[in-house]
Amino acid sequence: MGRELRGVEIVAIGDELLSGATLDSNAATIAGRLESLGLRVLRKTTVPDAEAQIEEAVRSALARSGAVITTGGLGPTRDDVTRAAVAGVFGRGLEFREDLWRALEARWTRLGRIPETNRVQAEVPAGAEVFPNRRGTAPGLAVEDDSLGLCVMLPGPPHEMEAILSEQVVPYLEGRTGVRGRRSFRRTLRTVGIAESAIAERLGNRLDDLPLDVAHLPEIDGNDIRMTAWAADESDAAAALDEAVSRLRELLGVHVYGEGEADLAQVVGDLLRGRGLKVGVAESCTAGLIGKRLTESPGSSDYFWGGMIVYDDRAKVELLGVLEQTLQRHGAVSEQVAREMAVGVCRRSGAETAIAVTGIAGPAGGSEDKPVGTVWLAVMVREVAVTERRFYPGTRDMVRARAAQGGLDLLRRTLLEELR
Amino acid sequence: MGRELRGVEIVAIGDELLSGATLDSNAATIAGRLESLGLRVLRKTTVPDAEAQIEEAVRSALARSGAVITTGGLGPTRDDVTRAAVAGVFGRGLEFREDLWRALEARWTRLGRIPETNRVQAEVPAGAEVFPNRRGTAPGLAVEDDSLGLCVMLPGPPHEMEAILSEQVVPYLEGRTGVRGRRSFRRTLRTVGIAESAIAERLGNRLDDLPLDVAHLPEIDGNDIRMTAWAADESDAAAALDEAVSRLRELLGVHVYGEGEADLAQVVGDLLRGRGLKVGVAESCTAGLIGKRLTESPGSSDYFWGGMIVYDDRAKVELLGVLEQTLQRHGAVSEQVAREMAVGVCRRSGAETAIAVTGIAGPAGGSEDKPVGTVWLAVMVREVAVTERRFYPGTRDMVRARAAQGGLDLLRRTLLEELR
Repeated sequence: MGRELRGVEIVAIGDELLSGATLDSNAATIAGRLESLGLRVLRKTTVPDAEAQIEEAVRSALARSGAVITTGGLGPTRDDVTRAAVAGVFGRGLEFREDLWRALEARWTRLGRIPETNRVQAEVPAGAEVFPNRRGTAPGLAVEDDSLGLCVMLPGPPHEMEAILSEQVVPYLEGRTGVRGRRSFRRTLRTVGIAESAIAERLGNRLDDLPLDVAHLPEIDGNDIRMTAWAADESDAAAALDEAVSRLRELLGVHVYGEGEADLAQVVGDLLRGRGLKVGVAESCTAGLIGKRLTESPGSSDYFWGGMIVYDDRAKVELLGVLEQTLQRHGAVSEQVAREMAVGVCRRSGAETAIAVTGIAGPAGGSEDKPVGTVWLAVMVREVAVTERRFYPGTRDMVRARAAQGGLDLLRRTLLEELR
Repeated sequence: MGRELRGVEIVAIGDELLSGATLDSNAATIAGRLESLGLRVLRKTTVPDAEAQIEEAVRSALARSGAVITTGGLGPTRDDVTRAAVAGVFGRGLEFREDLWRALEARWTRLGRIPETNRVQAEVPAGAEVFPNRRGTAPGLAVEDDSLGLCVMLPGPPHEMEAILSEQVVPYLEGRTGVRGRRSFRRTLRTVGIAESAIAERLGNRLDDLPLDVAHLPEIDGNDIRMTAWAADESDAAAALDEAVSRLRELLGVHVYGEGEADLAQVVGDLLRGRGLKVGVAESCTAGLIGKRLTESPGSSDYFWGGMIVYDDRAKVELLGVLEQTLQRHGAVSEQVAREMAVGVCRRSGAETAIAVTGIAGPAGGSEDKPVGTVWLAVMVREVAVTERRFYPGTRDMVRARAAQGGLDLLRRTLLEELR
């Protein structure tokens, strides 16, 4: 029974979602679960705990899409009005369900006497399908008719919502999806050192002939490119995705450092581990951030030796042997100092490679010659030093995050270059 | 000019928000900022990157509420269609703005040649108000007319959105709000080193007589207590809030390290600056995290000297002079090694104070005697060493974050103690 579904809208209900007190994670959970059915979330509307607004939002969503999942507003308090609103949309009354009331009472026996206020939770739109809630008191509900479509109501607390959705609603919807089988398959490429617009320019229309969607996802320290293909099974999607990835890798070259959730520090760690090398760090403006990132995953002691945080210029001299005269002649943010820092780490440690960073994170300290955001990077790989000057826009935090990423990337590129 | 506003709707734009790939935090930020103006968020609609759908959603929202803020879809790529959609709603064309183009070019000069694809970012609905974006390329925009109302467009990346909103849009909307009446006033106390349940036990019902709401907000590295009073103006709220803060400070003592957005590293920095002291760090399991935190605010060179990341045991010996025999007899995670690390930093630096941390962040490396989460902290203040053993539960990331916070807090308490 029921119509064939192609997608659903979500109506999220709750004052706290609009006041900013609660971040709504339910929609993302629903999108993930429905994806396996080949169903997309077409739109999401967030409304307050107000019956008229819920009614209007559900009505409009059904008119557009024929299927709605609501979250929230199923509790026992006076501001829980979803049941009444949806009954209104479908022109049905609320009916008291003895079986639901007994189940609620049984649940409460363990906790104490059931409050009369909970009685409303046994009142559901006439003829509704009920999905029991093993993690809480509010059951999920579904109402459907041929002209309006399907409305599934789920409770707001994420762990209750998630259990009912996965265990009962997904099976309930299975086999009703018209995209019988079409699911989404994704691949994401991660890039560093190239602007979003430069990526767009290199891409042009070069992926337009492939049956997939391309999304540009800017991050603070790089840009991700996500491709989504819809297909009956993985092998159908794989051809288009593989082709897209191979074109992108050719167009973007060394800027691509990984796929999916790849972390640049981990990529660098794996390169070092594969070559049996250790790295030491000499950090001025990043002040420990690169060390922190290189040690985020267990097992990093295979390739991370340690390093020096040389924030003060005295520390650069005393810990790393940077020459006083180099500091005086070129300034702390200079190619020469970056190189001497990298050389100093390798000399004073058991590490064969090094990353050194010195820059002006701001907001003060900039000059016309060296504005805030100017960073010198240096790496050493087996006694060869490589340096780069970079300019990173943004706040102090952003400059530091980008400088750390830049230092890691310079070591990555140098190690890859060495291999060739 | 313009109508009086009572609330706004948000239209959030982006495929990634519906697919579940990105959790939308922008709406919560907007709700928080608008609250200070007495404006509520009335509804939020999330739509994909599709011009017709954006147009319809903005049109409906304006019809209901007369004011809309959109987020997303202002970038340079082809799926960024917000400008065109909103121009369509207001029946205006897009106009190329020479001044915007020049500003974009100037921004790019430092980074390289500007790609032609960015040209669309200088095309805005005719007559739009422009809010420059100092953190990115897409400016915020506003379009208004007497019959439809006001539409403000903001970029999707949260750090860009937030800067434009706080610095430009809030002042732009000020004086146009019509909620005469009650606003919320808040104060938040930040604690460290005391569990949420211990706070609840100390509090008991001791704030129940005050006309305010108390919320417990657990953070990874401490617990916040937020009090909210609703009143017509600040002085009405202040009495209750002041009283609550003073009771809490008495009940929680030294565990309270600050209010509002206070950062423990900044609190420590201010104590050091006030005493004319510098600090050096010796980090094993935190591997740079304490250094990073102490340098998050500008001016930290007043009190931060630098330090050593001694992840590898060889680094502890070579950089800090920890004795081989101490490592062998007591292990790297021990009171003795923590103390020798702290002593080593002070000896090898110009710093009068030090923080040293050595611990087992996991997931591997634990034993019955020293399970994962065991951390030894040591601080030096003018030649006196203080040590503490701590056990921090949680994942690797959480143990490291808590260990960094613990080290900072031990220095704070030692400095305060010294003063008495």
